[in-house]
Amino acid sequence: MQRKRQITVIGDSAEIEVNNKLAGEVGIMAARNGWALIQGGRGGVMSAASKACMEQGGLVVSILPDDTPDAGHPYKTIAVASGLGYTRNVMNILSCDAVIGIGGGSGTLSELAFAWAYNKTIFALSESAGWSSKLAGQALDTRRNDTIIPAADVAELESLLKKLFFI
Amino acid sequence: MQRKRQITVIGDSAEIEVNNKLAGEVGIMAARNGWALIQGGRGGVMSAASKACMEQGGLVVSILPDDTPDAGHPYKTIAVASGLGYTRNVMNILSCDAVIGIGGGSGTLSELAFAWAYNKTIFALSESAGWSSKLAGQALDTRRNDTIIPAADVAELESLLKKLFFI
Amino acid sequence: MQRKRQITVIGDSAEIEVNNKLAGEVGIMAARNGWALIQGGRGGVMSAASKACMEQGGLVVSILPDDTPDAGHPYKTIAVASGLGYTRNVMNILSCDAVIGIGGGSGTLSELAFAWAYNKTIFALSESAGWSSKLAGQALDTRRNDTIIPAADVAELESLLKKLFFI
Amino acid sequence: MQRKRQITVIGDSAEIEVNNKLAGEVGIMAARNGWALIQGGRGGVMSAASKACMEQGGLVVSILPDDTPDAGHPYKTIAVASGLGYTRNVMNILSCDAVIGIGGGSGTLSELAFAWAYNKTIFALSESAGWSSKLAGQALDTRRNDTIIPAADVAELESLLKKLFFI
Repeated sequence: MQRKRQITVIGDSAEIEVNNKLAGEVGIMAARNGWALIQGGRGGVMSAASKACMEQGGLVVSILPDDTPDAGHPYKTIAVASGLGYTRNVMNILSCDAVIGIGGGSGTLSELAFAWAYNKTIFALSESAGWSSKLAGQALDTRRNDTIIPAADVAELESLLKKLFFI
Repeated sequence: MQRKRQITVIGDSAEIEVNNKLAGEVGIMAARNGWALIQGGRGGVMSAASKACMEQGGLVVSILPDDTPDAGHPYKTIAVASGLGYTRNVMNILSCDAVIGIGGGSGTLSELAFAWAYNKTIFALSESAGWSSKLAGQALDTRRNDTIIPAADVAELESLLKKLFFI
Repeated sequence: MQRKRQITVIGDSAEIEVNNKLAGEVGIMAARNGWALIQGGRGGVMSAASKACMEQGGLVVSILPDDTPDAGHPYKTIAVASGLGYTRNVMNILSCDAVIGIGGGSGTLSELAFAWAYNKTIFALSESAGWSSKLAGQALDTRRNDTIIPAADVAELESLLKKLFFI
Repeated sequence: MQRKRQITVIGDSAEIEVNNKLAGEVGIMAARNGWALIQGGRGGVMSAASKACMEQGGLVVSILPDDTPDAGHPYKTIAVASGLGYTRNVMNILSCDAVIGIGGGSGTLSELAFAWAYNKTIFALSESAGWSSKLAGQALDTRRNDTIIPAADVAELESLLKKLFFI
């Protein structure tokens, strides 16, 4: 018995068209490969990726800031009610096999840095607007020898994830 | 689109035969009804319920104390790495539509009381050994008009859950 | 250099006269001995103990559910903003050298049980109304050989704490 | 009655001489002004600031990742045992009236970004080595009109903090 591969999408909760479009493609990619999609249950890239993943029959987990599983957007198979407010961000990071950054402001920057400190493999969609693309290809400090890995588009991301997962 | 019903099993992490047997039946019940099984990823009733649920094709979520999804028992579809130590207990409670208590020591007592304070519907398997059965039929304070609901066996529990879920 | 001894008061946030009176005496006791008083920053025994402690020049720490240090009652030297909601209860317990239970409903029961599981020394004021007095003198499971220690009044509590702290 | 002003020092836990020297000056500044010093209880700038503050009779609070108040460096008046692992970083940020960044790697970057998202006033010592100085004078996204405020040295920092605190 084996748990599913889990990928976490982070990025802006605001509705930014270019980012949401990429997020939707990531959600479809997750469904197609049977990878569980983890995200924070709010708007923007979180709901865009989740909606697309659910529509394709994928498995979506919302790790919510709220203290009830009925909060957040409706596109989820499972809701984890953390009750922790935005401190729940760290759980979205800790729970995954790979982080996918799509744009994002200071909240996303915080998550990227936390993911780096916890040695998670991080991908950044280079076309997206915000901190993810700004840091793509960079190391956040000297503790690791790799970088935040740039992916030009979701096709390249899928191929990189398959390599990471030995598929 | 609608998330799955989520039931959380709490109880001893030690291996107590009577409790583990009941937990296994609860896991099968969850699988049979398409309810997601949430639990803390450790031994005893947690792994017994999860193993049985997975073997029947059910969906199991481990909300782990650890900071990696690869910790805990292997019987899970999804692993949430809380990184919070035993503070993660509160998330197992907050995330569910109903709590199922099977026996348990002080850790389970803490969860039952927390579930009560958060107004969760709580069932206790009366045959089990520990705090769950000791408090079955009791109110933990005056803020609620109900009690921890006793279930004589898993058949009665299933019937009570179906009523709760309007099935 | 050595940190202060830290005692945590738990109990009802509702205003119950007998409990608040005891809490005030505990606050004065903490100030008199130079022990830091830790509590959750809400009403009832928390604010009663804190007010009395501050008025006697003691040091009070509120570990708040809120995400700003300016929340809760004003009787505090230091405010820790956990941002965790009622999950912060566990930190009040983990942070202390001894837990003092004064009455309390299901929230307090949850804290008493958590304190037991984490091997904290727990005192219960026997005159108080609620779970603390109900469990005074009892063991919550078999992992420990001691009990929740009953204290008939604050004078006895002070003497028991001095013994615990080798004073 | 009024709680103390609380300043949180963030930065590298590794021992970097230039950063530790600045941290020591910050600790002395906190003691001199009666501001409580909050930090995460580990090495580097955390222990350097705390030691200096305690030696000058200041009040130091360690918000620890551990589940016991006896963990971490000894230079503290009060220890808060969060039991949350590095998730406790968010509490160091949430609890303060001002954040002081001294150098730092990805962990500090995560805290700076989180502080920004939570609208905290952030100062960065420009002479320090790491993310704090790199981001000094910058905005982390468009939600705020200010920047991370650069301070050339601790004398300037003290003067900026006094202005912030209306002293």
